[in-house]
Amino acid sequence: MVDQKIYQASTTAPVNIAVVKYWGKRDAKLNLPTNSSVSVTLSQADLRTHTTAACSASFGPEDSLLLNSSPQDVSGARTQACFRELRSLRSKLEDSSPSLPKLAALPLRIVSENNFPTAAGLASSAAGFAALVRAIANLYELPASPTELSRIARQGSGSACRSLFGGYVAWQMGEQDDGSDSLAVELAPASHWPTLRALILVVSDKQKDTSSTSGMQLTVATSKLFKTRATEVVPEHMALMEKAIKEKDFESFAKVTMAESNSFHATCLDTVPPIFYLNDVSRAAIRAVDSINNKAGKIIAAYTFDAGPNAVIYYEEENTAAVAGVLKGALSSLDGWQAKDIAAQDHSDVDARALGVLKEGLSRVILTSVGEGPIRTEQSLVAANGEPVKK
Amino acid sequence: MVDQKIYQASTTAPVNIAVVKYWGKRDAKLNLPTNSSVSVTLSQADLRTHTTAACSASFGPEDSLLLNSSPQDVSGARTQACFRELRSLRSKLEDSSPSLPKLAALPLRIVSENNFPTAAGLASSAAGFAALVRAIANLYELPASPTELSRIARQGSGSACRSLFGGYVAWQMGEQDDGSDSLAVELAPASHWPTLRALILVVSDKQKDTSSTSGMQLTVATSKLFKTRATEVVPEHMALMEKAIKEKDFESFAKVTMAESNSFHATCLDTVPPIFYLNDVSRAAIRAVDSINNKAGKIIAAYTFDAGPNAVIYYEEENTAAVAGVLKGALSSLDGWQAKDIAAQDHSDVDARALGVLKEGLSRVILTSVGEGPIRTEQSLVAANGEPVKK
Repeated sequence: MVDQKIYQASTTAPVNIAVVKYWGKRDAKLNLPTNSSVSVTLSQADLRTHTTAACSASFGPEDSLLLNSSPQDVSGARTQACFRELRSLRSKLEDSSPSLPKLAALPLRIVSENNFPTAAGLASSAAGFAALVRAIANLYELPASPTELSRIARQGSGSACRSLFGGYVAWQMGEQDDGSDSLAVELAPASHWPTLRALILVVSDKQKDTSSTSGMQLTVATSKLFKTRATEVVPEHMALMEKAIKEKDFESFAKVTMAESNSFHATCLDTVPPIFYLNDVSRAAIRAVDSINNKAGKIIAAYTFDAGPNAVIYYEEENTAAVAGVLKGALSSLDGWQAKDIAAQDHSDVDARALGVLKEGLSRVILTSVGEGPIRTEQSLVAANGEPVKK
Repeated sequence: MVDQKIYQASTTAPVNIAVVKYWGKRDAKLNLPTNSSVSVTLSQADLRTHTTAACSASFGPEDSLLLNSSPQDVSGARTQACFRELRSLRSKLEDSSPSLPKLAALPLRIVSENNFPTAAGLASSAAGFAALVRAIANLYELPASPTELSRIARQGSGSACRSLFGGYVAWQMGEQDDGSDSLAVELAPASHWPTLRALILVVSDKQKDTSSTSGMQLTVATSKLFKTRATEVVPEHMALMEKAIKEKDFESFAKVTMAESNSFHATCLDTVPPIFYLNDVSRAAIRAVDSINNKAGKIIAAYTFDAGPNAVIYYEEENTAAVAGVLKGALSSLDGWQAKDIAAQDHSDVDARALGVLKEGLSRVILTSVGEGPIRTEQSLVAANGEPVKK
């Protein structure tokens, strides 16, 4: 009689927002980047993917993935690579310990939920693949470290490798053709510099114009400025950023963060045809941050933009009033402020035109902070009978 | 008795729109550029500065300049450099021919009129300084060639040196510290390739956020991608552009024109703090041009943007219907179409969202073409009594 038992494990995984940007692959199949990158992991209290990985002979015959109750295609090379690598590690474990149940051969059922809109430019694929890899690794009881798992998550979505850690994370580009040294490492845990805050200005929940994958390869192929960025600008920024994080030097952190965002979007604009992620609302966010810094007489806020128009504004807790409070003063009608107890401040010193554009063009704000890496949870999205839990 | 005679001469001078962009000075005082550039001179039937230079012992005691009936400050180093250089050439002439009237010592009265909005991003300073230098050279009866005068006009406004020629013009950056070899030359007269047309989409007549002069020096000082543009990208584009113009190869001309515009704006975005000239309306113009080219199955239109949001779209006369006609079909309510006899065409194949943004965000269009250099005119803006002609 075949074992019909349902094996399962669950995790949550965080979003990360890069401060030294990943843009460009040297190997598209393995997601090997043209340059190293650094990110800040955001708190899962505000943004997270929750994933349960289950396997059972009663499932199948195919592997399946349900995201926010919608079946997803798992036949793509990226998801397949993650499944294959994780099964391979489980098989080795089973080979060396014959008493272990033979999970590697069973169909997988992955059930996943985001607490934020998918594909809205909020790095959902990073949290999603990190959670998928971490959940299956938990299910398979793999002894692999987060860095070892980062090699697998990277093949699902490049930036996912950074979401296997909390705090401040570097993705070392590596040099090997097989990607074995293209891995994420923790630069510092969240507890090293716990006062970093992030305010996300959500411009639009609409799907992005250009997918990141096709966009970045077009940049590598056509931008005449890209090589300078990858080989000269980013290495300089990596060194400055690692030092800034080590020393909790917000001003240096902020300077590199803003220069990196601009450098990345500059190479997008230099692509043929040009790729635009920043729009007039994004530009207004930049003006507002500049204005806040000018008023403060020093750099207390740093903007960064991924492959979309949403602004992420980093600041330190002690400047909450001068950054988030001032923006709340101008944008209090937006959804999202109620999540945290922040007093609205006078905004008369901030560029009024920029604030007007933000008021018109934002849909909501998200207040969050630096946070932890994936957290194992007993909360399961798969019921005892193996069916996805109904919400 | 002092000679009270009023000496005068008049000229018109054209606007030029660069297709290989000037951005960055290696010497701010002499307006010596960090890279060479190429422009197309636009027809004075549509865009021109008309300038009369007069001098008389009855004027003064100071030099004066009236632009569109408003007195202008002539004490700035740029205008003073032009006056000084032109007077110096006249003095040499007077020294060698003692019978000539002593004009170099007389106060200058310059009266100038643009037939387009000043400082709206329409390269008015280029036409303005070209007309000023050409008019004074005419007044002084200088035997100087346009290339010799370009050395002087460059000191007024860098791009003005290119407006001393018609057709297709290169500004060779030169190597000398004194700027003696930083000069404009004619690559080809308008008659070599007379079928080039330009459609200007005027986004806004408002003054620009950042003046070109401060903007470009900030880019030189802070953009980490700028050096690659100046030393690698532009030299490659210069060679391709000179060949494209020689061979009247529109597709090559268009590719370089669009890549140049994007490369220049990319280095603006890479500036600290970032400089934005393109807005959502500019981006819509880029999408519309891409869409027109995609429909044609080849490149029949090329956009370029100077230090402002206005799009200049180059195309060949034979594609008037597919480019200007299609845009007229979508944007027929705008002012400016009536200037030329162009039939509105079906625009259902062009990105509808982009056309919607253009319809909302443009104030007018200007239809023009490649044109001639400065033209001497007997139409004077200074009356026989020495007073500016009242309009």
